Amino acid sequence: MKITKPTFIVDKKKAMRNIERMVRKIDQSEGPIRFRPHFKTHQSAPIGQWFRERGITAITVSSVDMAFYFAQNGWNDITIAILVNPLEIEAIDRLAGMVDLSLVIDSEEMATFLQRKLTHNVNLWIKIDTGYHRTGIEWDQTEEILSTARMIRRSLKLSFKGVLTHAGHAYKARSAAELEQIYADTVFKMNRIRNCLEEKAIDGVEISIGDTPTCSAIERFYGTDEIRCGNFVFYDVSQWLIGACQPEDIAAAVSCPVIARYPRRNEIVVYGGAVHLSKESITDRQGRTLFGLVALPDKISPTWGPVVDQTFISALSQEHGIIKTTDAFIREIRVGDTLMVLPVHSCLASNLLKNNYFFA
Amino acid sequence: MKITKPTFIVDKKKAMRNIERMVRKIDQSEGPIRFRPHFKTHQSAPIGQWFRERGITAITVSSVDMAFYFAQNGWNDITIAILVNPLEIEAIDRLAGMVDLSLVIDSEEMATFLQRKLTHNVNLWIKIDTGYHRTGIEWDQTEEILSTARMIRRSLKLSFKGVLTHAGHAYKARSAAELEQIYADTVFKMNRIRNCLEEKAIDGVEISIGDTPTCSAIERFYGTDEIRCGNFVFYDVSQWLIGACQPEDIAAAVSCPVIARYPRRNEIVVYGGAVHLSKESITDRQGRTLFGLVALPDKISPTWGPVVDQTFISALSQEHGIIKTTDAFIREIRVGDTLMVLPVHSCLASNLLKNNYFFA
Repeated sequence: MKITKPTFIVDKKKAMRNIERMVRKIDQSEGPIRFRPHFKTHQSAPIGQWFRERGITAITVSSVDMAFYFAQNGWNDITIAILVNPLEIEAIDRLAGMVDLSLVIDSEEMATFLQRKLTHNVNLWIKIDTGYHRTGIEWDQTEEILSTARMIRRSLKLSFKGVLTHAGHAYKARSAAELEQIYADTVFKMNRIRNCLEEKAIDGVEISIGDTPTCSAIERFYGTDEIRCGNFVFYDVSQWLIGACQPEDIAAAVSCPVIARYPRRNEIVVYGGAVHLSKESITDRQGRTLFGLVALPDKISPTWGPVVDQTFISALSQEHGIIKTTDAFIREIRVGDTLMVLPVHSCLASNLLKNNYFFA
Repeated sequence: MKITKPTFIVDKKKAMRNIERMVRKIDQSEGPIRFRPHFKTHQSAPIGQWFRERGITAITVSSVDMAFYFAQNGWNDITIAILVNPLEIEAIDRLAGMVDLSLVIDSEEMATFLQRKLTHNVNLWIKIDTGYHRTGIEWDQTEEILSTARMIRRSLKLSFKGVLTHAGHAYKARSAAELEQIYADTVFKMNRIRNCLEEKAIDGVEISIGDTPTCSAIERFYGTDEIRCGNFVFYDVSQWLIGACQPEDIAAAVSCPVIARYPRRNEIVVYGGAVHLSKESITDRQGRTLFGLVALPDKISPTWGPVVDQTFISALSQEHGIIKTTDAFIREIRVGDTLMVLPVHSCLASNLLKNNYFFA
């Protein structure tokens, strides 16, 4: 395959190794834990197939459209892990007639709304806020959680599954030790809720957790019934800086043609900008704000080598990426070469380039 | 039309007014100036038609794919305003056989490459760096500019048009006065180059400029033969904070369903995230980093009202937007409402939602 423009390259071997590692860790953990990987990272039926081959039958998505896409590709057990958008109720009900659908809510009102509007049965999770402060009932608001659970239990169309959280604050961590602490805190809070519900005779409550940072950092899962991480299939520069992976685990890169080099200021410009990589940035330990790291394409296979030292995307406009680098590296590079950019956030780059994917 | 998920709404009346204002300003300026608006902002054939109705026949795009799209939609005079990517030479040559194509280079090597590889004729601009430091020959490197121009002149397939710049550093300005200064500086530098070239018997050199901030701020154009701005058709929150437009000029918004409200922390959560708005942010005068501003949808038409006071998108994840707001505003809003988010960078939001456009 000849790369001519920014292309999302998936290193299948690395991605399979990432899947294998997570599947094995879940298998070896305490108690039966369901793996329900988040498919928003790749949004790709062929990559879904790699999970299926490893025995996965349940998935997570982040939109109704994505749920339809995977339903049409043979997935039958789907959680839409964003609070129900009432404006999409007709599409949701259609979907509930097609697959075993799980939804997420954080209020009694929404339970009532679903009971009134749906014609098909769905499973319901109550979203809990364990510290990220995006959505969910705060974990210590026991009365509110309890009354919402009771409301769901009273409805014939709604089947109460349990409590679900996303520890998105793990993305602010910068070491494996911090991540292990966030994991411990998350399962402590979720189990406290389960105990409170059980004390009030609401039994069979499941716990669902699963951000990539904490799921990658801990050695063995405990205190949960379901794991929903997704980014781990590709990882990215953020996950590396957070302490969730090693650079050699990063399984996705954007191949970008070099269109200019400026030795006077040690900068290389690639065709590859905000519409390919997204404007997601991260500040590294040296205080540099970066939009991607750089590797050389492998000479034989369509994969890539190690991260190039002292070299990073320092700015992005719509179609351009500016790479700050060294004298030595700039001497090696010519206009017309391609460079591999490891994205800061692989989910967003993958979403932008989903029509321009290549499996290496 | 019923909005059920994040949708890019174009207020046609405002967009037409923005087009009309720029066309009239160009018409009333010194000397004949060609308007070659940048179509990367909208990437939309129907919006292109609004320009055509106002007499525009020449356009700018930022990728070869975009050039093909507009060529297929009847546009015959197209500049691809990004340095030539040599890996796309075959597609470029095909395009050069279809339309009157202009390309941009900043080295003798690229002139030689094009002369060797193209089978069709193209027009060539030399890209000049007047202070943005993204691409181009630095404006005071007269010898380099001259030798590149001579190289182009020697080639039978390449027609030398002149010098082209993008004053992207205008995006760092925060007042109309600063923008007028950048405009003056840009045309001074470009005219100095033209004079130098003419002294060396390279005549007929045109000047092409045109970022939205400076083009919006100045009263009358001068010192240029061509204007290429594009963002002005929609404008956005950045342009407003830069000093290039008023909030009522912003002609594009993303309609986002409200999926949660948290009165305890004065936050509203919308379905509308980084995959709809992009992660472009800007810091305003109060030091707030924001990813969008908020307006209420109009009750009668599918447009929107004024910007809501003390209310902004404070964080974005893949599908979620978090709006920080006031007690008063949160009391008005219910889950299931829609809010209009004025994007920080309309080009990026438009690119993300180009399959989900609605003309109000």
